[in-house]
Amino acid sequence: MTDLIRDDLESSDERLPRGPRTIRDVARLAGVSIGTASKALNASGRLSAETRAKILRIAREIEYRPNVLAQSLHRTRSMTVGILSNDSFGRFTFPIVEALERRLFDQGIAVFMCNATDDPLRERRHIDQLLGKRIDGLVVTARRADRREPIEPAARGLPVIYVFSRVENRNALCLLPDDKGGAALAVRHLAALGRRRIAHITGPERFEAVRLREAGYRAALAEAGLAARPGDYRPGHWSEAWGRDAVQDLFSRRRAVPDALFCGNDQIARGALDALREMGRATPADVAVVGFDNWEVMVKGARPPLTSVDMNLDALGREAGVCLLDMMAGRVITGVRRLPCSLVVRDSCGAGQHSAFE
Amino acid sequence: MTDLIRDDLESSDERLPRGPRTIRDVARLAGVSIGTASKALNASGRLSAETRAKILRIAREIEYRPNVLAQSLHRTRSMTVGILSNDSFGRFTFPIVEALERRLFDQGIAVFMCNATDDPLRERRHIDQLLGKRIDGLVVTARRADRREPIEPAARGLPVIYVFSRVENRNALCLLPDDKGGAALAVRHLAALGRRRIAHITGPERFEAVRLREAGYRAALAEAGLAARPGDYRPGHWSEAWGRDAVQDLFSRRRAVPDALFCGNDQIARGALDALREMGRATPADVAVVGFDNWEVMVKGARPPLTSVDMNLDALGREAGVCLLDMMAGRVITGVRRLPCSLVVRDSCGAGQHSAFE
Repeated sequence: MTDLIRDDLESSDERLPRGPRTIRDVARLAGVSIGTASKALNASGRLSAETRAKILRIAREIEYRPNVLAQSLHRTRSMTVGILSNDSFGRFTFPIVEALERRLFDQGIAVFMCNATDDPLRERRHIDQLLGKRIDGLVVTARRADRREPIEPAARGLPVIYVFSRVENRNALCLLPDDKGGAALAVRHLAALGRRRIAHITGPERFEAVRLREAGYRAALAEAGLAARPGDYRPGHWSEAWGRDAVQDLFSRRRAVPDALFCGNDQIARGALDALREMGRATPADVAVVGFDNWEVMVKGARPPLTSVDMNLDALGREAGVCLLDMMAGRVITGVRRLPCSLVVRDSCGAGQHSAFE
Repeated sequence: MTDLIRDDLESSDERLPRGPRTIRDVARLAGVSIGTASKALNASGRLSAETRAKILRIAREIEYRPNVLAQSLHRTRSMTVGILSNDSFGRFTFPIVEALERRLFDQGIAVFMCNATDDPLRERRHIDQLLGKRIDGLVVTARRADRREPIEPAARGLPVIYVFSRVENRNALCLLPDDKGGAALAVRHLAALGRRRIAHITGPERFEAVRLREAGYRAALAEAGLAARPGDYRPGHWSEAWGRDAVQDLFSRRRAVPDALFCGNDQIARGALDALREMGRATPADVAVVGFDNWEVMVKGARPPLTSVDMNLDALGREAGVCLLDMMAGRVITGVRRLPCSLVVRDSCGAGQHSAFE
């Protein structure tokens, strides 16, 4: 029992600025010993029904959550976790959630799915519902890997992980794809294939992912002894139409044109490929093209099939599952972790490898 | 109490061929009255802890589920339902699940999400886990609106709904989009715009959706006094490449060519549009094109923006929520229900309306 209590206090010291409710609080308010409170809360041992009821009522009133105390005790767990998504479309969220659910299911843990679609009131009600179900942990995902406000229950000792989503809180754990590294992979690959003028057509700069991918683009250019010329970096929109427009502008006005395009997503790359073809420029012979996301429907539909950076969303989901299990077992994990992307080579980059996908 | 028992027996007569465990079974085996069994099972009334424990143990042993008895009694519900998906990609499932989750959340019901990805063993384990959580209902979805084996717990009185999925069981409730009606909408629209030779390029005939859409296509042609000429119906694949190939074949060999294409999905339509443009045929002036699915990324990326049939998956999800709540309240709903599709008109059909989407 003493060990359990020490464990509780240690983890509160580490993570809980305002202090969570401990079994000590419950015992004091109920006027019983800690041992008696523990029996009631763990539904074990001999105890009168009245005492048990009183202790449970007080624990409820002060919002005591047994997983703060006994995260390593299987029997006090609800064996459920919540996934709160703000991605109403699901393209990025779904592979993450699927891999996470699979990982947790293997441990006998069921997953509550909630969609708040960026409605703060709805999100609040979802969290209340999940806490009412006494979830053992919470995973928060978002539409794009962008910043958001931290979830309040994190302050009460409930393990919370942000996946594909970021909060400004030193005590939070955020799992994200390594956008900068992914961009560098693409540009390094193009440079290694002998491309000397690599332009970057990408999405809106308000996205952190856009800024990180630009940084990776410039870093890999520098590594290869290259540099972006004025106008070669083109932030804009996440659409095919923007890919077409940017290519028309890049390739129609000037004599010295890029011999490669690194695009911020696959839709931009797809639009770029269409525009290049319609302007009579061959891909990859004249212009190599690499996309980002490795979105099956886009890379398969592209002509030629598109080489693209894969964010490994399933690995992100699996890692979230592993971290959540660790946190539920009492481990404290904080910080921003960026997981590596990979490059899936098809025909559009001119590496000479042919795709197995088309 | 008598009313409750009658209700129980009635619903078992209606739905449960081999008979579920009733409160009568529990009472008999525990050697107590039905009133006493009810107190224990509903956690109400005065009862010794030993008797309560014995009754609950017996109920567990014989797999008695209180929602069979007391579906209309709020307090015996777990206020959770399960959603079992076999759609590993999520494009069709996600909008359904999202709308369903939203509908149930408004009633204070939380949703367990499970993904079996077509693995029967995994599905079985998921169902066991859900039953262990004492869910009040189960919704089963699939990748494509195709037939599957019924889920076993339906035989035990748990409300089960199949959405975008179909089983051969008169007692099951299946909610599906009206594929035939959706196809007829598209073809009727093209005929009303004066198109006289409407070809149909579509997916593999092993899909029920393909056969139903073909039926709708032929029915609407007949309504308009038209008929498909030989070779105008082209089943094949769900891909852009197939759309391109079919168009090349349809338009390169013959003099008399179609003036409209109804495509079985948006990817086929997108490929068809690309091939038409590259063959110098104008859309919609020479050839009107209509797709199916109204998949945002496809219809927006298409040039011109694609008119497409929308399966109203969110309405399907909402309806599933409404039906599940009704079934949880004791109503018996069975049969195959097909919900209407709608046609979203953009530029590719030549109706002269411009899209607000591009």
